[in-house]
Amino acid sequence: MSSRPRAAIVGATGYTGAELARLLLAHPSFELGPLVGHSKANQAVEDVLPSLAGLVTGEIAAFDADAIAAEVALAFCALPHGASAPTVAALRARGVRVFDLSADFRLDDLDVYRAWYGEHGAPELFGHAQYGLVELHRDALRTADLVAVPGCYPTASTLALAPLLSAGLIEPSGIVVDAKSGVSGAGRSPAPSTHLPETAEGFRAYKVGGTHRHTPEIEQELSRVAGTAIRLTFTPHLVPMTRGILATAYGMAKGAVTVERCREAALALYEGSTSVHVLAAGKSPDTLWVRGSNRAHVSYHVDGRTGRVIAQAAIDNLVKGAAGQAVQCANVRFGFAENAGLSLPATWP
Amino acid sequence: MSSRPRAAIVGATGYTGAELARLLLAHPSFELGPLVGHSKANQAVEDVLPSLAGLVTGEIAAFDADAIAAEVALAFCALPHGASAPTVAALRARGVRVFDLSADFRLDDLDVYRAWYGEHGAPELFGHAQYGLVELHRDALRTADLVAVPGCYPTASTLALAPLLSAGLIEPSGIVVDAKSGVSGAGRSPAPSTHLPETAEGFRAYKVGGTHRHTPEIEQELSRVAGTAIRLTFTPHLVPMTRGILATAYGMAKGAVTVERCREAALALYEGSTSVHVLAAGKSPDTLWVRGSNRAHVSYHVDGRTGRVIAQAAIDNLVKGAAGQAVQCANVRFGFAENAGLSLPATWP
Amino acid sequence: MSSRPRAAIVGATGYTGAELARLLLAHPSFELGPLVGHSKANQAVEDVLPSLAGLVTGEIAAFDADAIAAEVALAFCALPHGASAPTVAALRARGVRVFDLSADFRLDDLDVYRAWYGEHGAPELFGHAQYGLVELHRDALRTADLVAVPGCYPTASTLALAPLLSAGLIEPSGIVVDAKSGVSGAGRSPAPSTHLPETAEGFRAYKVGGTHRHTPEIEQELSRVAGTAIRLTFTPHLVPMTRGILATAYGMAKGAVTVERCREAALALYEGSTSVHVLAAGKSPDTLWVRGSNRAHVSYHVDGRTGRVIAQAAIDNLVKGAAGQAVQCANVRFGFAENAGLSLPATWP
Amino acid sequence: MSSRPRAAIVGATGYTGAELARLLLAHPSFELGPLVGHSKANQAVEDVLPSLAGLVTGEIAAFDADAIAAEVALAFCALPHGASAPTVAALRARGVRVFDLSADFRLDDLDVYRAWYGEHGAPELFGHAQYGLVELHRDALRTADLVAVPGCYPTASTLALAPLLSAGLIEPSGIVVDAKSGVSGAGRSPAPSTHLPETAEGFRAYKVGGTHRHTPEIEQELSRVAGTAIRLTFTPHLVPMTRGILATAYGMAKGAVTVERCREAALALYEGSTSVHVLAAGKSPDTLWVRGSNRAHVSYHVDGRTGRVIAQAAIDNLVKGAAGQAVQCANVRFGFAENAGLSLPATWP
Repeated sequence: MSSRPRAAIVGATGYTGAELARLLLAHPSFELGPLVGHSKANQAVEDVLPSLAGLVTGEIAAFDADAIAAEVALAFCALPHGASAPTVAALRARGVRVFDLSADFRLDDLDVYRAWYGEHGAPELFGHAQYGLVELHRDALRTADLVAVPGCYPTASTLALAPLLSAGLIEPSGIVVDAKSGVSGAGRSPAPSTHLPETAEGFRAYKVGGTHRHTPEIEQELSRVAGTAIRLTFTPHLVPMTRGILATAYGMAKGAVTVERCREAALALYEGSTSVHVLAAGKSPDTLWVRGSNRAHVSYHVDGRTGRVIAQAAIDNLVKGAAGQAVQCANVRFGFAENAGLSLPATWP
Repeated sequence: MSSRPRAAIVGATGYTGAELARLLLAHPSFELGPLVGHSKANQAVEDVLPSLAGLVTGEIAAFDADAIAAEVALAFCALPHGASAPTVAALRARGVRVFDLSADFRLDDLDVYRAWYGEHGAPELFGHAQYGLVELHRDALRTADLVAVPGCYPTASTLALAPLLSAGLIEPSGIVVDAKSGVSGAGRSPAPSTHLPETAEGFRAYKVGGTHRHTPEIEQELSRVAGTAIRLTFTPHLVPMTRGILATAYGMAKGAVTVERCREAALALYEGSTSVHVLAAGKSPDTLWVRGSNRAHVSYHVDGRTGRVIAQAAIDNLVKGAAGQAVQCANVRFGFAENAGLSLPATWP
Repeated sequence: MSSRPRAAIVGATGYTGAELARLLLAHPSFELGPLVGHSKANQAVEDVLPSLAGLVTGEIAAFDADAIAAEVALAFCALPHGASAPTVAALRARGVRVFDLSADFRLDDLDVYRAWYGEHGAPELFGHAQYGLVELHRDALRTADLVAVPGCYPTASTLALAPLLSAGLIEPSGIVVDAKSGVSGAGRSPAPSTHLPETAEGFRAYKVGGTHRHTPEIEQELSRVAGTAIRLTFTPHLVPMTRGILATAYGMAKGAVTVERCREAALALYEGSTSVHVLAAGKSPDTLWVRGSNRAHVSYHVDGRTGRVIAQAAIDNLVKGAAGQAVQCANVRFGFAENAGLSLPATWP
Repeated sequence: MSSRPRAAIVGATGYTGAELARLLLAHPSFELGPLVGHSKANQAVEDVLPSLAGLVTGEIAAFDADAIAAEVALAFCALPHGASAPTVAALRARGVRVFDLSADFRLDDLDVYRAWYGEHGAPELFGHAQYGLVELHRDALRTADLVAVPGCYPTASTLALAPLLSAGLIEPSGIVVDAKSGVSGAGRSPAPSTHLPETAEGFRAYKVGGTHRHTPEIEQELSRVAGTAIRLTFTPHLVPMTRGILATAYGMAKGAVTVERCREAALALYEGSTSVHVLAAGKSPDTLWVRGSNRAHVSYHVDGRTGRVIAQAAIDNLVKGAAGQAVQCANVRFGFAENAGLSLPATWP
């Protein structure tokens, strides 16, 4: 009998849930517990998650907080925002440690949450979660029983810009983040905007004009790092591929900034990280280089003609941008090696 | 016997050359003349350009300025920069009207050319070409015998930003252009950076830090429109698809700018254009919507939180960004309808 | 005022409808008439068919047989099978010449139709349509007022195999057709099977085991050509791209068959065709070489070790496999050049 | 100090080498040894294999048989055929256990090798290797010091067909294998046939007519299983994606074969396999379902109209079709769990 902590996945039938199952199946220290779903409850796992065929038998379980609490030490919740909060509350009330991948507990300010997302489903818990960007909050995560795992865009954007703001290398105002995501970020529900014939051979932006909900989360974390309020322009784009996010961020250099100073700031901030790699000067990250892995590649360039610093970060939106980061948080919380179960490099090419 | 002006394509075996052949084959007023190539001279057209199999017989011709001049009224030159200038000079010396798709004659300032491209191959002709962005130079093109057809990135970037600068809606400083191109923009020579397994499922920037050679061309045209020197940050990215460019441009609003004012500026500047379409407020362009056509879609958004205007343009880099634009210039020069042979909409989806 | 025959598109908002609009907009002899749709009636054309933005104004019209009959000489019907038959009947009753792209009138035998599709929506018209594979039925099409435009798979499969069966080069039994289609063949409705993240980086068969509805249509046409009943195994696959069909067909050589004899049979059968090109010996077709065009490339190989002939055909499923073929039929019917409006080569690459 | 057997990768800079490095880095029982390359020797690993950046430091080593033998217990050779044989011989002469991923030792008959590949580079070793399709040769592999790891197409084709031939469910003659591969199977060298713009939006066959070198390998293994000589027609195709092989195989049913009998034959043959999964009746494999994993999905359909059995198998060509299978062989040889280091499911989607 295993003494490894068992982990439930609530919302297991979406892409983030599937990725959590992939990572937990091969994890040396956690044991994969029940796969919980709503609309696909009682269907065979194999029929819902075809990559698990022959590896996980049984069915998708319907949500039952008591049953889950009786069986697991921790739960990963991969539900849509809004739906997540009450589910998280039910699990927390029963003592289950929760790693929530929705947006419901990522923001510090309830008014900001309401402005971007609407009413909150468990306001009494709001403010009790620890934001789970491990590289910036490692110590606090060691004791956190409710972790708000960051969004995919915020992870990439923050990892790229945090060293520059932390070291005072760019101005806090006037930042632009032009981000590009693979289509899996849109989730598993078919829609015209993800229909292959209208997506595979085209490229487009969406939520242009500063209206994407990840904006306040990026600003919150960067403001914390910068020590001053950050407002930035964020524009997401859809790349005709399945996985990967590249954030290209632009800031005005504060004085005579060099690529080396930017890299040093990043090497210092990410010292000891098992996830973040600072590319050599002159290189730019490629999402393919991190695909399928929990790794983030960051790079820095300076445009001397215009005095602008260009910071980039590439991640796999479903791994370092979601499931992998959640497992990384859980590793820290349970005292395992931070990259336990996360050491496989990208499936390149 | 046809009385339509015959057109040679010099450099017919690359992608721009192939696209020129496609457009000229179906053109109502020009006649497709010799397909001229260097490394593939004397090979069957069908073996080199498989889409012409059964439509164009014969072989790729070696370059012979006298023979070309004896046969055609105009030539499209689709050669690499540097190689183009002497070829253009040889044809111009024989009275052939030339539409040059290289960078060799696009810049006004020879020193700027040398700084970005090196020595010029026909300095005596430098300064004698008309820049061929029809929407901005229609009248001058009516009498131009040497036309420098714009680059793909400059076309998209300029079409997006020109209305804003022309109408004084954004500040001339601090502009960022984050551009994304399909892989055909890299040409027909195989390379690691265009090898499908390392390109198809990844996304990356290149020439980061203001080093792409199209930068001075964009700045030249926008400076002209703005009436003041423009310096901007330009970052190109590679999209895992074959065709299309999307330019996402960011500028600081000058005062209280609305989307409607931006659209009105664009509608005014592009009035009567058969190529440029200003999207309805709220929409963003998709490269798929213009794929295979000579059309450009532009859009405008305002981020009120940060005071930034986001201008976008989508084109097919091989059509409005190259071959189609060249044919459009030739239509203007020869007095044909501006969109003669260019009226087919995008092959959507 | 134009004296060109006007053409309505009924079912204009799907991919075949959009492709018909593209071809008719640039057609020299037909005039684009009303774009008729059901679920999207009264929406702006630009909002429904983004590639027509700025080219076609107005709205999608609701279906009204009298209004259409008052306005047009011909109609292209691009409706789902079942829904098409009564619409076609209403238009025919009012004297409109109809080019129907559904499966409703393609089969000769009503029992076969019922077995594969269910009840027929206009049985009184069944048997009154001319099958519209121009290369095999050119003469009959000159006087046909109701044309059943072939399916995409049948077009590719039949074009590849007809010369071999017609010339008696392969056995009529034991034929296998392994076909591969781009995703646009599945239509415009989003579904899990066309959702980019589950489609773009994978490859799979569907309707395996001889259950695809195009099977009897292929058999009907090949039986006609062969002069004996053909039963074959047909397996379709989904290629992670938007457009294109490649049919790879296998037959047992009858005696000592050479590639040259196969090619000669094809050159003879397709003599004078403006669509079908027989590739040089040794070459295989690529769907990219015909993308966006009304062309078909066919090729023949012989596996001497096993006595098998491999026949291939590549088409664009939306052009030669649907809209282009319909226009080609209409050109024949109205006495225009067979490739009027269809002369543009593929948009390669 | 680790007591795990160290493994060299010779030919580490190609895609198979990279995949071996990925799998060995996370392997619980082997230790990743030197990464050996020829043309890229002495370059930083990070510059050559970008997915290993930050995970593997140091340089690509030049080949030195003595140095390798001093350091490792086993070597994976991922060299081109022809180049592999002498390298393998040098390592075997020094007692290194070799898992060779080239074609050099896969065939039983030297004449057949010569007919398809030319002269052999180490004829004295020919016939001394164990073919490494674990599912068919598990016991023999336990003591094999030289293993010829199967090709990607043979793995998929054999896994699909072996149960049918083994159980006598199809005729041994008349088999057709129509196979489709992602582009990574073509290796890392850029070429026109792998250049994204001419590959990403098209589909084509290659080596048509029974000329692909994997044909005799497939026939050899199936003949062994069937107990009679098998000759089949094999046609490979290129899918516009990076990874994955789908083999669709056609055989004539021997008597009244049902899907269930086929599945039972496969379940029996693959009993206990940690790699092969027999899909439920009615399902077809998708390469995406196994992408990045060492898994194979097989399925069976019967076309009752034509008496044909359709057998399919999907694998990741770089994992179960190359690197994963090599590691699986090594696991068996060294007495580790057969799926040690290979238990991660596919990176789906």
